[in-house]
Amino acid sequence: MVLPLLTRIDHVGIACRDLSLAIGRYRDTFGLEVVSLEVNDEQGVREAMLAVGTSAAGLSWARPGYVQLLEPLGPDTPVGKFLARRGEGIHHVGYGVSDIGQALAAIAGTGVRLVDERPRHGSMGASIAFLHPADLGGVLTELVQFGTAG
Amino acid sequence: MVLPLLTRIDHVGIACRDLSLAIGRYRDTFGLEVVSLEVNDEQGVREAMLAVGTSAAGLSWARPGYVQLLEPLGPDTPVGKFLARRGEGIHHVGYGVSDIGQALAAIAGTGVRLVDERPRHGSMGASIAFLHPADLGGVLTELVQFGTAG
Repeated sequence: MVLPLLTRIDHVGIACRDLSLAIGRYRDTFGLEVVSLEVNDEQGVREAMLAVGTSAAGLSWARPGYVQLLEPLGPDTPVGKFLARRGEGIHHVGYGVSDIGQALAAIAGTGVRLVDERPRHGSMGASIAFLHPADLGGVLTELVQFGTAG
Repeated sequence: MVLPLLTRIDHVGIACRDLSLAIGRYRDTFGLEVVSLEVNDEQGVREAMLAVGTSAAGLSWARPGYVQLLEPLGPDTPVGKFLARRGEGIHHVGYGVSDIGQALAAIAGTGVRLVDERPRHGSMGASIAFLHPADLGGVLTELVQFGTAG
């Protein structure tokens, strides 16, 4: 395993009560645009990805970062419970990794608990896994591997 | 003003009670290293910047993102109050901008309240300004302009 494990800040996940309102806020305030809109039943969210920065010309590996807006599908989902407990705000941070399987094994070896022992389906076709916030200073941390590169 | 205003996710600001412990956690779990350690009396924090990803070879504009670990200088500081209210966790997100003065003027024009009407001194010599979380879905949002590029 080559360190560091994390290749980039992939996204900031933000919990909101109304996805359309939140999208409008980021568009009107900052000029950000939605590049993907999907429902993830497994995670219990309706979500929008807004690109921050653009890929450098001709450099496909220079991915933008994303603001990920998350509206819960119901009150008993993880994001629904977060909203009830803490209100709208930053829910998690997602970092890129080159090989999510190797990264999970290495991190488990340090004693940090994994929320997801195996990668799951994330936004825009990525493989993702969450790490336990109690072992990371209260920060819900996500690993993200895209199909072609981390 | 050219949209979008935000050029990149610059950093994720994380509130912690003990900076040394938090640095050790990110080093041991992810292999991240401290690239800057400073005290900001104006903001009331002792802080460490840990680079996530490296600048692309020969491309000085391809800056890494940063995990910014924040330990309050006392209980009556903004981060001290955050810790008392919510505990350790993600405190804010910082986005790169090309021209912070222009960005603040444009954002103020949309009705979002500015915490800082004028840029202040931030990490690693950057000019920074915070936007009011109440107008941004509970997200304390920081703009960051580095000396040479946003």
